[in-house]
Amino acid sequence: MQSRALPSSPRLRVRRHPERGAYDAQTVHAILDEAMIAHVGFIDDQTPVVIPAAYGRDGDNLYLHGSAVALWSKRMAEGAPVCVTVTLFDGLVLARSTFKHSMNYRSVMVFGTAQLVSEREEKLHGLECIVEHLVPGRSREARPPNEKELTGTSVLRLSLSQSSAKVRSGGPLDDEDDFARPVWAGVLPASIGYGTPIPDALVPPIVNVPDYISLYDR
Amino acid sequence: MQSRALPSSPRLRVRRHPERGAYDAQTVHAILDEAMIAHVGFIDDQTPVVIPAAYGRDGDNLYLHGSAVALWSKRMAEGAPVCVTVTLFDGLVLARSTFKHSMNYRSVMVFGTAQLVSEREEKLHGLECIVEHLVPGRSREARPPNEKELTGTSVLRLSLSQSSAKVRSGGPLDDEDDFARPVWAGVLPASIGYGTPIPDALVPPIVNVPDYISLYDR
Repeated sequence: MQSRALPSSPRLRVRRHPERGAYDAQTVHAILDEAMIAHVGFIDDQTPVVIPAAYGRDGDNLYLHGSAVALWSKRMAEGAPVCVTVTLFDGLVLARSTFKHSMNYRSVMVFGTAQLVSEREEKLHGLECIVEHLVPGRSREARPPNEKELTGTSVLRLSLSQSSAKVRSGGPLDDEDDFARPVWAGVLPASIGYGTPIPDALVPPIVNVPDYISLYDR
Repeated sequence: MQSRALPSSPRLRVRRHPERGAYDAQTVHAILDEAMIAHVGFIDDQTPVVIPAAYGRDGDNLYLHGSAVALWSKRMAEGAPVCVTVTLFDGLVLARSTFKHSMNYRSVMVFGTAQLVSEREEKLHGLECIVEHLVPGRSREARPPNEKELTGTSVLRLSLSQSSAKVRSGGPLDDEDDFARPVWAGVLPASIGYGTPIPDALVPPIVNVPDYISLYDR
């Protein structure tokens, strides 16, 4: 991806509020790395289907995984076109008029066709990217996949070459005529917050909560 | 929607982990009311497109809105099939094996065809539902839409008659063989957290932060 260059595909250009579009790899990568859940869209029997999914990133590739018999991983492995959208909710924007209410957000859309990863080393790498995306450092401690787990799972690679970001930030964009209204206006910031870790009942007492969980912050 | 009855459409049945499926209106409504952003999937020129969007709910209907000239609201107004997916991220699930790592979440999928709302009163009601979903109480204080704003906006109604929920909660589901591993396992709970309201620079000093923002909690 070239920095800030407009993408070649018109589908990737942000048309509503073009000033919110961003096409540089740094912006796209940062949003993908911070968010947790992707919404994966595909077509099944002429119907759009959108499912939430975990993912990982390595450079300019996304990795997705699913049961080898799940509908969506089968469709994607067959070469069906896909749209992966990732959205971070950053706040509520309260304007003086109901109409100008908005949300602050950062989103990425990725279009393309995923490749089924068949080579064993890349499959392991893709799964590791997904776990490391959720909990950096975790793959060094947890047991790696065994043969049965590997066989039952499809790992899919989706290039970020057809991706763009859209970012809305800042306060309300009220009409000037509304400025004098005696109503509060502004932003209520939002972000993902994490609570106290809940250990599984069977964790031996000598095993402490690891730093990558007790200090977890994204 | 009948309580817990399996839906007539096979597309709505949760096939992976069927025990996580929920088909009652109460579960579906609660998830829709708590979440903020929907991911709206539609087909454009044989390509799936997934966009983040605000929404509101009134009974068994969702309301969506968009610029009257936006691609997605045009496609939906034309009667294109749609899939609206809403996901709440509830936590990271750390298992003893990388493979069993998961997320706790609550999601809703809605399939159907949206209706373009042309009647003025319902259009105003749909827009009010969207604002009230984001900030309950807000529509009593902010200026209602004027004619120009109404004309430039499409409001779409989508029935929840074809909807289902999927919920994952609780700790890791490790293989028994992994129980003895000396690695921490459990859940890191997550939820949306809200920060300190940031007033717009032009809000008069006599206008205080309203209770529906200072006490905002979902």
